[in-house]
Parts: sequence; C-alpha cells; structure tokens
Amino acid sequence: MREGPMLQTTAVDALPGQDTLARMFSPRSIAIIGASSAMHKIGAVPLAHLVRHGYRGKIFPVNPNAGEILGLRAYPDVKSIGEPVDLVVVAVPAAVAGAAVEEAAAAGARSAVIFTSGYAEIGPEGARAQEQLAEIARRYGMPILGPNCLGFMNVRERLYATFSPVPFAGLVEAGNVGMVSQSGAFAAYAYSLARERGVPLSYWISTGNQCSVDVAACIEWLADDPHTSVIMAYLEGCRDGEALKRALSRAREAGKPVVVTKVGRTDSGARAAASHTAALAGNDAIYDALFRQYDAIRALTIDDFFNFGHALSVLGRRPAGQRLGVLTVSGGVGALMADAAEESGLSLPELPPEAQDAIVERVPFAGPKNPVDVTGQVTTEPDLLDFAGELMGRSGCYDSLVVFLAAAGLSDTLWPQFLDRIMRTRQRVPEIVMAICTLMPPDQRKPLEDAGVLVFDDPTAAIRTLGAISRPPAPSAVCNAAPPDVGLLAAIQRTSEFTEAQALGLLRQAGFPVVDHVSCDSADDACRALEKFGGPVVVKLQSPDVLHKSDIGGVKLGLRTPEEVRRAFEEIVTSARTHAPDARIEGALVAPMVRDGVECILGLHIDPVFGPVVMVGLGGVMVEVLRDVSFRLAPFDHATAHEMIASLKGKDLLHGARGRPKADVSALADALVRLSQIGAAAQEHVRSIEINPFLVLAEGLGAVAVDAVIECAEQETKP
Amino acid sequence: MREGPMLQTTAVDALPGQDTLARMFSPRSIAIIGASSAMHKIGAVPLAHLVRHGYRGKIFPVNPNAGEILGLRAYPDVKSIGEPVDLVVVAVPAAVAGAAVEEAAAAGARSAVIFTSGYAEIGPEGARAQEQLAEIARRYGMPILGPNCLGFMNVRERLYATFSPVPFAGLVEAGNVGMVSQSGAFAAYAYSLARERGVPLSYWISTGNQCSVDVAACIEWLADDPHTSVIMAYLEGCRDGEALKRALSRAREAGKPVVVTKVGRTDSGARAAASHTAALAGNDAIYDALFRQYDAIRALTIDDFFNFGHALSVLGRRPAGQRLGVLTVSGGVGALMADAAEESGLSLPELPPEAQDAIVERVPFAGPKNPVDVTGQVTTEPDLLDFAGELMGRSGCYDSLVVFLAAAGLSDTLWPQFLDRIMRTRQRVPEIVMAICTLMPPDQRKPLEDAGVLVFDDPTAAIRTLGAISRPPAPSAVCNAAPPDVGLLAAIQRTSEFTEAQALGLLRQAGFPVVDHVSCDSADDACRALEKFGGPVVVKLQSPDVLHKSDIGGVKLGLRTPEEVRRAFEEIVTSARTHAPDARIEGALVAPMVRDGVECILGLHIDPVFGPVVMVGLGGVMVEVLRDVSFRLAPFDHATAHEMIASLKGKDLLHGARGRPKADVSALADALVRLSQIGAAAQEHVRSIEINPFLVLAEGLGAVAVDAVIECAEQETKP
Repeated sequence: MREGPMLQTTAVDALPGQDTLARMFSPRSIAIIGASSAMHKIGAVPLAHLVRHGYRGKIFPVNPNAGEILGLRAYPDVKSIGEPVDLVVVAVPAAVAGAAVEEAAAAGARSAVIFTSGYAEIGPEGARAQEQLAEIARRYGMPILGPNCLGFMNVRERLYATFSPVPFAGLVEAGNVGMVSQSGAFAAYAYSLARERGVPLSYWISTGNQCSVDVAACIEWLADDPHTSVIMAYLEGCRDGEALKRALSRAREAGKPVVVTKVGRTDSGARAAASHTAALAGNDAIYDALFRQYDAIRALTIDDFFNFGHALSVLGRRPAGQRLGVLTVSGGVGALMADAAEESGLSLPELPPEAQDAIVERVPFAGPKNPVDVTGQVTTEPDLLDFAGELMGRSGCYDSLVVFLAAAGLSDTLWPQFLDRIMRTRQRVPEIVMAICTLMPPDQRKPLEDAGVLVFDDPTAAIRTLGAISRPPAPSAVCNAAPPDVGLLAAIQRTSEFTEAQALGLLRQAGFPVVDHVSCDSADDACRALEKFGGPVVVKLQSPDVLHKSDIGGVKLGLRTPEEVRRAFEEIVTSARTHAPDARIEGALVAPMVRDGVECILGLHIDPVFGPVVMVGLGGVMVEVLRDVSFRLAPFDHATAHEMIASLKGKDLLHGARGRPKADVSALADALVRLSQIGAAAQEHVRSIEINPFLVLAEGLGAVAVDAVIECAEQETKP
Repeated sequence: MREGPMLQTTAVDALPGQDTLARMFSPRSIAIIGASSAMHKIGAVPLAHLVRHGYRGKIFPVNPNAGEILGLRAYPDVKSIGEPVDLVVVAVPAAVAGAAVEEAAAAGARSAVIFTSGYAEIGPEGARAQEQLAEIARRYGMPILGPNCLGFMNVRERLYATFSPVPFAGLVEAGNVGMVSQSGAFAAYAYSLARERGVPLSYWISTGNQCSVDVAACIEWLADDPHTSVIMAYLEGCRDGEALKRALSRAREAGKPVVVTKVGRTDSGARAAASHTAALAGNDAIYDALFRQYDAIRALTIDDFFNFGHALSVLGRRPAGQRLGVLTVSGGVGALMADAAEESGLSLPELPPEAQDAIVERVPFAGPKNPVDVTGQVTTEPDLLDFAGELMGRSGCYDSLVVFLAAAGLSDTLWPQFLDRIMRTRQRVPEIVMAICTLMPPDQRKPLEDAGVLVFDDPTAAIRTLGAISRPPAPSAVCNAAPPDVGLLAAIQRTSEFTEAQALGLLRQAGFPVVDHVSCDSADDACRALEKFGGPVVVKLQSPDVLHKSDIGGVKLGLRTPEEVRRAFEEIVTSARTHAPDARIEGALVAPMVRDGVECILGLHIDPVFGPVVMVGLGGVMVEVLRDVSFRLAPFDHATAHEMIASLKGKDLLHGARGRPKADVSALADALVRLSQIGAAAQEHVRSIEINPFLVLAEGLGAVAVDAVIECAEQETKP
C-alpha cells in the first residue's frame, strides 16, 4: 500500500527465461540493499519477515552504516558478501538504486527485486532511469522485478521479499494458487483476502513498473511451477501481446486454469486505468477475445476473482461439463438458482422419471425434477440429503451438483448429521463436482474443502462460479494460416489507396468470396456489363478519394435496362465532379444486384499489442445501434469462427428468423477464417480491412463481399 | 425449515385491515393451541421462545392433556381461557386445526397464525380445507397468517409466534427493517443472514399458503408501522395485483423503500417456481414494470437483497441522486469500481479543476479526476483521507462517495487513524452518502454504521448497492385515464372479431393515431381511394378470419396506377378464395403508403393478475430476434411513456441513428399513453390489442398505426 501509481513505459525486449526466474522465486541466498532495523524504513520489513517467519536460505543485510542487523552480520555492499547471491532486494532511494543494482549484477547477483519508486510513474525523467534498469537486466541477463513494486513471496519457502506489512497481520496458508498482480495496492489487498477466505497461495507477486519481468512472465513461470495448479492474475494493461499469449498457452498446456481480472472494461473504467497507468489498455473486446481463445477465466469483480480461484484450488480441476443439478431445501431459492444457472450458461437437465418417482415416494411434496426440492423435511430426515444427492449423482445427468442447505451450517445439532451425509455422497459419486451453499463459520469449511467440496455463503455466487469454471475449452487457440496468394501482398506493397474494385479484386485473389463485378471507364462499358450479368445491376462510383460514395449520389441500384445504366453512369460521374471536384474519378463499378442475403459486416484490424484481430457483426441496426459484434485474434480455425458467430446476440437472424431461409453460416465461417489468414499474412502491410456489406445467402448458396475498403499500414513500414 | 412446499390456491377476497393486523402483530395476549413442553413438537417451540426471550404479554398454553406447561397454567381449549385473546397460534394437525380455529374465533380471538401443513400444498383436498379456513377468516373478520407457514416475530416486543428454531442459535438485533417472505425456508435462512450480517429487524413474517394475510397485506402493515423504515419482501408469486400495487403505493407514500426479491425470472427459474407453488407466477417482465412503477428496488440475488436492505437500514434514506465520487488507494480497483458504476447507472462527474490541483499538490502521482486515487501514500499521511474526502464532498458534484481502503480495516495500527478521518469527513459533509470498502471484522462496523456510513467488503457490491438505491423515483405510478370515446367500448361489446379496418376505426375513435384508410368492396372503390390519396397506396385483404394476410398474398404494396390497384384487388380476393376458402372476405382496405418512419410495435394485454399492461418495442429484428421490449402497467403518464421508450436497447434508432432524421418520440409517447388509457377503460372487454407496425415519423410529423389486431375478451365476460 505504500507505492505510488504503477507505470510501465519501458519495452520488455528480452523476457527472462524460466531458469533465471527460478533463482529469483526460489533463491538460496538473499541480499537486502538498504536493510535496516528501523521499521519505518522499507528495507526493514523484508528482513523482519525473513527472520520472523523462518526463511531457511542465507540472508545478507547490506548497509554501510551498520555492523549487525537483527542479529545478522551486515555488509557495506553486495560485493563484500564474497559470493554471488541468488536474489538482491533493493530498498534504497532512486538516486542510488541504479548504481546499487549495477554493482550487484557485476558481483554476480542472479536476480533483483526493486521496491524503489520514482521511475516511469513520475514522468519522462523517471522513465529514462527505468530504461537504465531494463538495460542492466538485459546486459547481465539478470531478471528484475519492479521497480516500484511490492515485491513477492514464496509462501512455501517462507520467503518474503516484500515491504508490504500485510503478512504481519497473519500469514496465508501455503497452497496451490499462484497470484500475480500488476498493482501493488491490489496485491496487498488480495493477500489479505486470500488469508481471510482461506485461499492457499504458492507465490504472491507484485510486478509494479515491469521493467523486465511482467505479469506474462510470471504466469509462464507459474505454469511450470510444480507447486502451483491454479493461477490468479490481475492485469491493468499489456504491451507485449505475444508474451501474454505464450504465457496463457503454456498454462493451458500445463492444465492450469488462469483466472484473470483485467480492469478498464467500460469507458469510465478505461479512462481511470489510463490515467493510472501508462500501459496501453488495449481494446477491452480484444482482451475478451484473447481470454476466450486462450481459456483464461475472466472475473468481473474481485469477489468472483476469489470465488473462481478458490473453487479451482479446492477442486484441482474444472467440472467435466455444463450440466448442473440443484438440490435444495427451499423451492424458492431453487428457482433463484435456476435463474442464475440459465444466465451463467449452465443447463438444468431433468432427473430421469424413475429417480423422480423415488424422490416423490420419500417426500410426497418434493419438487422432483431439477431443482430437486426435498423441502424442510431434511431436518427430520437428514438421510434425504444423500438419498437425493446419490440419485442425482448416479443419474449420469449432471457434471456438477449444488446443494442449498439454508442456515444449517450454523446449527450445532443439525450440521454434524448433514456433514456426514454430504461426505457419504462425496464418496459415492466422486466424479461429480459438489458445491454446498450454507451459512457456516469459516473454520468449519475445512473438512469439506479437504474432501474437494466447494462451500459458498451465497447461492448465486455458487452458480456463477460453477458457470465460469465449467465453460468448455475454446476450440483451439490458433490455426496455421494457409498463405494467401502472394499477389495480394505485392499489390498492397505497391499501392496505398484502393478503389472498391481494387479492394474486391485483392480479396478475391486472396481466396475471399466477392461479388462478380466489372470496372467500367465509360457508359458503353457499363452497358456491356449489364448485358454480361443479364439482370438488374448496381453502378457505383470508383474513386480512391471518395470513401462514402452514397453520400454524394455515387451509388445507383436495381438498374435493368441499358438506358437506365447509361443514365446512372453519367449521373454518378457528374455528381462526383460537382461534389468532390478534386477527387480522382476512375469510372464506375458494375455488379449484379445480390438479393435476399443476411447483411453482415466483417472487419480486420491490426491491434498494436495483439496483432491481427477479426470482427464480425450483423449489418445495419445490430452493429450501428447495438454494437453487436464479436472479435477473435487471428488466425483462427472454423470452430472458432462458428463460436464467434454463435456469440452474436442477433445470431437467430442467420438461422431463419423472421420467416427467412436459414443462411449459409458455413460460408460465413469460411470467410472469417480466410480473413483471419489474410490478417496473419498481411499484418505488416495492412492497417484494416472492412467488408460491408458481406451478404450471407441461403444455405448452400454461399456468401459474398459486396463492398470493401482496405486501409494500408503507414508508409514507413513499406519497402 | 420444517414446512413442505408453499401453495396458495384460495382467493384472498377480503384483505384484513390495519387495525385487525395490529392485534396480530402486536398482541397483548397469545394462546398456543397445541402447546407442549416436548421440544420435538411444533407447539413447544413458540412457547419456549416466548418464555425464554421475555415476551411481556399474557401467554395461554392450550392443551387438554396438560395442567401446566413451562410453569404456565394450561387450558383445555381457547374458550376456557375466559377472555378473548389477541392472537391464537395453531400448532395441531390439519385434521383438528379447522375446528380449533373456528372455536377460537367464536371465543373472540382477534387473529390467528396457523403453522399446520396439509392444505393447498398437498392437492385439491387440502385446498378445500384451506378454503374453509379462509371462510372462517372472512366470517369472523379474523386475519389468519398461514396455514403452512413459519409464523412471525415482533422482534422489539420479543414476540416469537414461530416454530422455527433459528432464534435459538442467537437473536437478531431489533431495528428498522420489516422482513416478509412467502417461503418459510427462505424466511428461516433470511433470519440467520440478518443476524450474521447485522441487519436489525422490526418484524419477521412468513406468509405460507396465504389463505387470508398475504405478502401485500404485510407490506401495507409495515408501511404504516412506526418502527419500520425499510421493507424487505421475498415473493414467489402474486394473485392479487391490486393489493400489491396498493401496498407498494402505501410504502412509497410513507417514504419507506421496499427491497424485493421475486424468484422465477428466466425460463428455468419460472419452471422451478411453478412446480413449487401453485401461484400464478405472472410474466416476469410485468413484475419488473410493477416494481419500477411503484419504486420497489428489485434484488436479483440474496446477497444483493441483503446489501440493499442493509444499506437503506443504515442510511434511513436514499441518496439524493446518481452522481458518484470514488476515492481509492488503488488506481486499478478505482477503475474496477468505475466499470461497475457505469453498469449500475451511476455517473462519475470529474472533480472541478481547483480541487484536482489541490490533490495533485498534496500527492503528485495522484489520480485527481474521479476516481480520485490518493495512492498508498495515505498509509503514511492518513489525513489525505479527509482532505480528499472533504474536497470531493464539498465540490457539490456528488450524491454519494465510495472510499476503497483495501485491507486497512484489518490493521490494528492503521485503522484507528482511518476511522477518525472518516468520522471527521462524515461530520463535515453530512449530506453526502458515504460508503467504505475495506476488509474488516464484522464487529468493527458498528461505529461506522451508527454514524450512517455504509461498510462493504467488496467494492463491486458497494457500487451495485449505491446504483440500486440511487435510482430516481419513477415518474408517477399511474395517471387518471381520460375516458376514451364510449363508441369504442360499445363496438367492442357488439362484436368479437374485427377486420383491420374495424380495428383501425375503433382505435381512431378512441383518439389513437391511425393511417388514413378506406374500406373497399370492389376494385372500382379501390381505384377511387387511390384517386383520393393521390399517391402510391397499399391494398390489403379484409377478413375477420385471416390474421396473417401477407402469408396468403393478401397485401400489395406501392401501387401507383388505377390498373395496378385494380389488378391488386382482384389478385388479393382470388388468392384469399384459393388459400382460405372458408374465410369471410370483406373486400380490401386501401391506404396511402407511409414511408420513412421508424417501425415500432405497440401492444396492450390484460394480465390476469395486474390488469392492463402496455408494451412497446422497435419493429423487425429488435423485437423478433432480440426481444427488445418494454412493459408498463396501464394507465400511465407521458413521463412514464418516455422512460419506457428510453429503456429500449435500440432506442438510438429513434434518435437519428444511421443518418436518419430524429423520430417524433413525443408522438410515440402520446400513443403509448393513449393506449394505456384505452387499456384501463376497456379492460373488461378486450383481451389484447397489437398495433404492428406503428410508424414513428420524423420529428414534428407524428406517428401512425398502419395495422392493428384487436382480440376480445371471452364471451362470458360480455353482456
């Protein structure tokens, strides 16, 4: 809680490897530069922690003005220690910290954590000083945590390389949750929360200004750490998208769920985050796509951040699926949980009829379907609990079972009987995830949690948690892009502005479905095009200088006769000359009218942090009024494209809503995959591609781009 | 927790008045029929509570087989007591309960609470027995709580007319929150929650099968009770909408906020509620409208139910408005709160520049706008808290101030200083609602709450709570309907099926804007209509037997010449004869084409519980794919109509989205008000009215119904 706001302005070029981080996070020796026994000094706190809590490695206080501190010999500098230390803790002012770090590195120190503030968070001068720290880290291959961070703890090894006083108020239990936070204030708060809620930690890490080790590097380290099975990460921004993708991939490969809170979701939040950090907050929808594609579980509140992390810590796994059974002693609360389940993406399959009959036979007034309401009768017949629980568990209908027991957990007489019944059910149906909702003193949760049973106070929190951790894995993070036609890239490198015809032509070359069209220099050409297409056509102005053709009368629709086409061509050209006298006019494009498709918008843009990103939305109202769009990082495969489409609120429009035929969703998915491949291949050259409208025809008839705009990357990135 | 599922199948005809309820809820004497000292009997529990917790009125155990129970003289029956008692508690089996209640009533008992189960919840036979209880209540004017309920408590008077054992585990504090629950299981759970969370109760009431006293009657009683200032109500269904409206109105007039949880929101939830209760769950959107129009605060989770109720209990009022100031020691958590604020309908005005300067002068790294981030610096300079708090409070920019202090509440050294600073701020800016978020032992909240300061563990819960309780009052519950033209009612009474022309004609008569139109019996008539309108027209089949004209080719659009109109008329009639040979065909309707309006759907339907309800939605995709509609109980005023429109997700369509002119929203609001008045006046005769499309033209140009369907009420309700 002592640090100022966090800033990161220095590039993380060379991410520290796992072996160097092992020295940092599990050091055999620690030097504390600025060690002190005066507890108001930040150098006093880590030393006090290490001594008091029984760290077993070597501790070297470094302070030129002291012979001995807390009974340990003090050294005037790191060199005098006489052996290379695994970790140097830097707790001296910024004016001398840089020199101290350099000296330590020269003396063979293998890693450093810098508490000192006064770097990038105070402005350009601090940013330069921070860049010098980053340079030392790179030059010596010595990972640095911080500056301006709270440090870290290795809970199992009783290693407290932090000046946060929070451990003095009580230690968190050692366990399987690795916690990393970009914010120190949040990290301190989270430590207390973990202790109060009984979430056992392996590591606790605050990354601060991230001059060398960032949140991604910590996630990657925790993914390989044998003592960690769940990772909780608090993120304010990210400047190295590839590192974060790599870290999340590593965690997924290791089978370790990552629960993440990323602040700055809405406009206000993003404003607050931006004024707080210099980090590029990125577009929140892109973070959502990233977390989805890499199977990170996003929590929108601190309460859920801990609910999700704690549940995964207790379970050691995710539920096998999304089918939820609800067992309740109150029909009303059962209904409330059913509401919450539907909103959390869980399904509530009914119990098979034989099992329903068995329940009604025991309790005639029971609700036997799902929720199964055994009513207050359980207070006189506690075995109803395992009777119903086992019936539900053995039915094969459920992946998780949530049991609402009201305030039974507070009853001295009732609870021991209930606990016994719950444990029995746990043993009989071990494959089902079980969650108990009851009011209960925190210390009584232990036997349940030790048996892998989740415990919640609030039934809605239980459901929300099961919903979040039960979400099925993303189809696959990425797919390898089939290289699109090189002609596309060559063309993009040659030109920086495209007419519609050129844009459509390039997309077609790259294997993207576009409407048939002809570029016409004259009204005669246009009439020949009409003859070729043999049906009603559209005539559109072509000019690299006019983006919004319709606004200046540059589009004429539904033309059937040569006369209509000729008049349209002439009117368009005249209108353009009047309204945009300086525009280069390159004739008109003639294309057949495409009818009856579902109008979509497809977009590609190159995000500065995460690279190519593809967007899909349903045209018109859905995008413009409701912003109903879906994003994914490119490239991706068909399953991802289908999931992306399925996440649109208006998706029913593609599935035959309003009496229309079902649309060719496969063709839409094909196009999205193709666009994602184009994005991956052309990300150096393109800034954005917008295809609007993209018409999805009836099933089996495909889909076509009717108009497209390609925006090129800045000139300096071109040869 | 002992009761079976709750059912209510008996009509509540004569609601008990406030004076008779006063005898029930604050009795001077109580008889317990079925009193016992054997604690496994439900008649033993209330007696034990009354004796143990020191109830000061007279207690008369009634049990023919005992001379004395718990030191009190026992009576063989109520009559033998020799004086009329204020309250009779019935704890004997259903087989004898009815006779006991009748006997008690005959002996002058002024009210009864019946624990006994075995009534409507077990089926038709039980429902008949329950009807007999209701009949006794009506005949003697004696209110009955139950049957099949947990009873009630008057916490201040230590009156425990309940067989729930929950008070044995500890008593709830006496205070200003009246709690009423339809479900007994929930009521017992809620009692424990209130105790654990420190929510002080005036009354705790479980209504069970509601044969005479329902949740609405309890709300109405609590609205007039001088000891209650906040009402918390848990509702599963409602069969008397007028009573609930009256109760909520009464609470609003008395300035007492009502926090309500109504289960059965989504499909699954409603299913669970329906299998649990026989109550008509009603349409959840209608409950939402009711709660909004009557200023009840709906909580979707039990956690929020208590968060909202507790906050109002502490504050004794709602915040003056929706402007939130956030003061934080962590920029990241500030951003998280800003996210939540936006989603909760709160605004985050920036601090004025002078105040910002003053903050940055104290803490150069501070975030000075809003959230105001004073950083971890407060740990060394605790006066930053009241310095910033007072600046924010005095700025006039905020109605509420939320302060995030991480885990400071757990620190023995820090917290006393912070508490002092918070109290100081509280005194300096008493008009601002203050909420503190910090981890804190529950017993330390008291001094803050006594000073009217809210305390939360979780920052998002704090924001959600402030958002819910800060929502501005609804414009006005109802407005008096200007009686629509009686011709409408007469016509509806005469006819039960309407063609489009008749429906439009009736609506016009009732002062509702409809498109100009002519009913035509022949093609010649239709051509004359074209001449009259002088522009492109639409020709539509008229038949009381064909609801979906378009499906059988019964609509022809954009006809400009007499030839086109003649052909259209003939084709329509021919097509109808082919596709619907049995339909009565009453010619065609000719109307001018209305262009460029925003398409809406307006609906009226008569809800069996709540009466006339008006719906508005934006036409096409918005309604059919996204179900983007808004409901209000009719009749209502213009302000309500505008609020209703503003709650549509797609409302931007009416405000000039997609380059269109702004639509005539006032005309839409006028039409909604008019439809609500028609609904109120014609509710006996109409079942539903659907106006689709209703076209809202550009600002100043009005709006018109283009098609309408009127469905009449069942024949038996007509003369």
